[in-house]
Amino acid sequence: MKAGIFHVPYMRPERKGKETFDWSMRCAVEADKVGFSDFMVGEHATQAWENVPSPEIVIGAAAYLTERIRFAPMAHLLPLHLPGSLAIQIGWLSQVLEGRYFLGVGTGAYGRDAMLRGQPEDLSEAHPRTMEALEVIRKIWKREPFEFEGEFYEAAFPDVHAEGVPGVDSSEGEEVHTMSDFTPWDGPQGPEIAVTGLSRNSPSLKWAGENGFTPISFFGGSALQSSHWDTYAAAAEANGHQTDRANFKVCRDIFIADTDAEAKRRAVDGALGYCWQKYLIPIYKRFGIFEGYLADSGTGITAGEVDMDFLAEHVWLCGSPETVVKKLEDTVERAGGFGTVCMNTHDSIDDPEPWFESMRRLATEVAPKVAISASTTA
Amino acid sequence: MKAGIFHVPYMRPERKGKETFDWSMRCAVEADKVGFSDFMVGEHATQAWENVPSPEIVIGAAAYLTERIRFAPMAHLLPLHLPGSLAIQIGWLSQVLEGRYFLGVGTGAYGRDAMLRGQPEDLSEAHPRTMEALEVIRKIWKREPFEFEGEFYEAAFPDVHAEGVPGVDSSEGEEVHTMSDFTPWDGPQGPEIAVTGLSRNSPSLKWAGENGFTPISFFGGSALQSSHWDTYAAAAEANGHQTDRANFKVCRDIFIADTDAEAKRRAVDGALGYCWQKYLIPIYKRFGIFEGYLADSGTGITAGEVDMDFLAEHVWLCGSPETVVKKLEDTVERAGGFGTVCMNTHDSIDDPEPWFESMRRLATEVAPKVAISASTTA
Repeated sequence: MKAGIFHVPYMRPERKGKETFDWSMRCAVEADKVGFSDFMVGEHATQAWENVPSPEIVIGAAAYLTERIRFAPMAHLLPLHLPGSLAIQIGWLSQVLEGRYFLGVGTGAYGRDAMLRGQPEDLSEAHPRTMEALEVIRKIWKREPFEFEGEFYEAAFPDVHAEGVPGVDSSEGEEVHTMSDFTPWDGPQGPEIAVTGLSRNSPSLKWAGENGFTPISFFGGSALQSSHWDTYAAAAEANGHQTDRANFKVCRDIFIADTDAEAKRRAVDGALGYCWQKYLIPIYKRFGIFEGYLADSGTGITAGEVDMDFLAEHVWLCGSPETVVKKLEDTVERAGGFGTVCMNTHDSIDDPEPWFESMRRLATEVAPKVAISASTTA
Repeated sequence: MKAGIFHVPYMRPERKGKETFDWSMRCAVEADKVGFSDFMVGEHATQAWENVPSPEIVIGAAAYLTERIRFAPMAHLLPLHLPGSLAIQIGWLSQVLEGRYFLGVGTGAYGRDAMLRGQPEDLSEAHPRTMEALEVIRKIWKREPFEFEGEFYEAAFPDVHAEGVPGVDSSEGEEVHTMSDFTPWDGPQGPEIAVTGLSRNSPSLKWAGENGFTPISFFGGSALQSSHWDTYAAAAEANGHQTDRANFKVCRDIFIADTDAEAKRRAVDGALGYCWQKYLIPIYKRFGIFEGYLADSGTGITAGEVDMDFLAEHVWLCGSPETVVKKLEDTVERAGGFGTVCMNTHDSIDDPEPWFESMRRLATEVAPKVAISASTTA
């Protein structure tokens, strides 16, 4: 199994922009150094606890500081950009990263994000805008002339070889007004596209399967993870796309230290525990996300009874390297195999070393020891 | 006088994205080290010779590598972005740079840039879109509730203190769904805004004056530079904005070496000469930009007779430090004072050291020796 990073990032709301940015760089550099495969960066304009609005800026900055790790916005929220501008930015950034770029796409989940762009806060336009924007983006990557007039967007691409097109006429010099070629590094078909799923029967993972995109599951218990794969795989197979559990990524909260007791102490008392108390427990309760964990736990308690002990034991992958290997193997047994375990980042600015130690242990002592598929689910 | 950088950047069209990006980082780091005040980055989606489409990515990456220099997109082309998204990105990036950010805004000059975004290639929407987009951006920076419905854009801002607004209701925990605060570092009024002018009676410099923005002149002879200031200053004074020539920036092509002969040799044989031969001479001829230089030169030649000798003597600021000081003083005498001489960057990837030497000499041996205002124009 490979180890990835999902840099949501969960940050204390009082952090300054520079603190969040510098922390992003430190996490990316450390992840690259110790062998993480992927570094994915969220895009949120209105959530103080998840406060990077422009993942492309974090990715570009980290590109210059790293050598091996792959980056992705996870996700560019397609309704919130002009598709022509986003197509060019993605194409160029993928060129800068020369193969170390893939592309998360999403519709957005927050009404306020939509409001800022003059779209309905009930997100009723988010899905159709996403579909149309992706169509435009992929047309632009092909660098062939077209004119598009959709429900939400218009776009066109010039004939770059034509004489007499404004700005293209090259009569006064061979290279004057040559058009830039921001075709993605991977070619006109574009980079690998990835999509995250949270819910049961996730429409986004069905969409991923239909289009041959990479599926990413936010873990919410083994039954949910299993359903994420099944939803994706059924759609993929129905549309002639091969599936491979090695390409399936699952995002988790993780803390690893020398012993179970030390890991739990550091997790509960540190950034992970703070974020869960202040931000994630209320959200998990509100949206019923604990249900899958409660079912897995066999404890018989209810969401109202969830405490830090429960989180450390049943929600987070928390413990010594041996314990976390065992927990991951259990998940593979119960939920089926996956190729990359992705660690959500937390705001450990005030005490970074235990966090980086946990990262190192995941990449070097845990993930490599876990088989992608259990014998029963291979 | 201060020294600035205008990173157009002029790049050979065959450069790969990573080459342009890495060169951008080297230029920014060097400029910061030797004391340049500003580093401005162009935004061009369709010009192979000026091929950074996303200045914010270059700025974010360079932010992490530098300490003192200020950055600006020069310019974000406002019609080519969703204003809500751009407002947030600018606010956040200005926070990351903690005072080292200012904002260039423009309408865009290339029809193909507009086509990609589904706008008329005759740029007939560029001006009204720019006005409307800036209005929306400045509203969002204020972080007060509004609903805007314009000719081109819609946007809204929620009441961040309201209960019951989707995603804002905080009944389940104090910090849950707190809204991010991407107010610019400088405050709700936003960062310093700068505008470039190229033409006589420049409408953009008139607009700059009316609004108290910072004026930037692309040099095209002393009469044009003089008219740029006059256009700006008349509009500023008519609208109650104070003017100060110390805030006026002028962009030039510059090459400095130990002697005049060495500077000319390096300039003509290097990146500067190559770019002028392949790209800028045809453009300057087509748009009549040489006229102002020809008038200043007193040579009596025509644009058709412009050669490398003429460029080195009359168009570029080329020579020993003493010669370039003298040329700058001459310009101040003829055209009036200005506060920053900005060096356009050229693609010296294949032989960087003479280029960096020229940069160092401008910042340390030339600009500090030039008075901002001549006695006759003070």
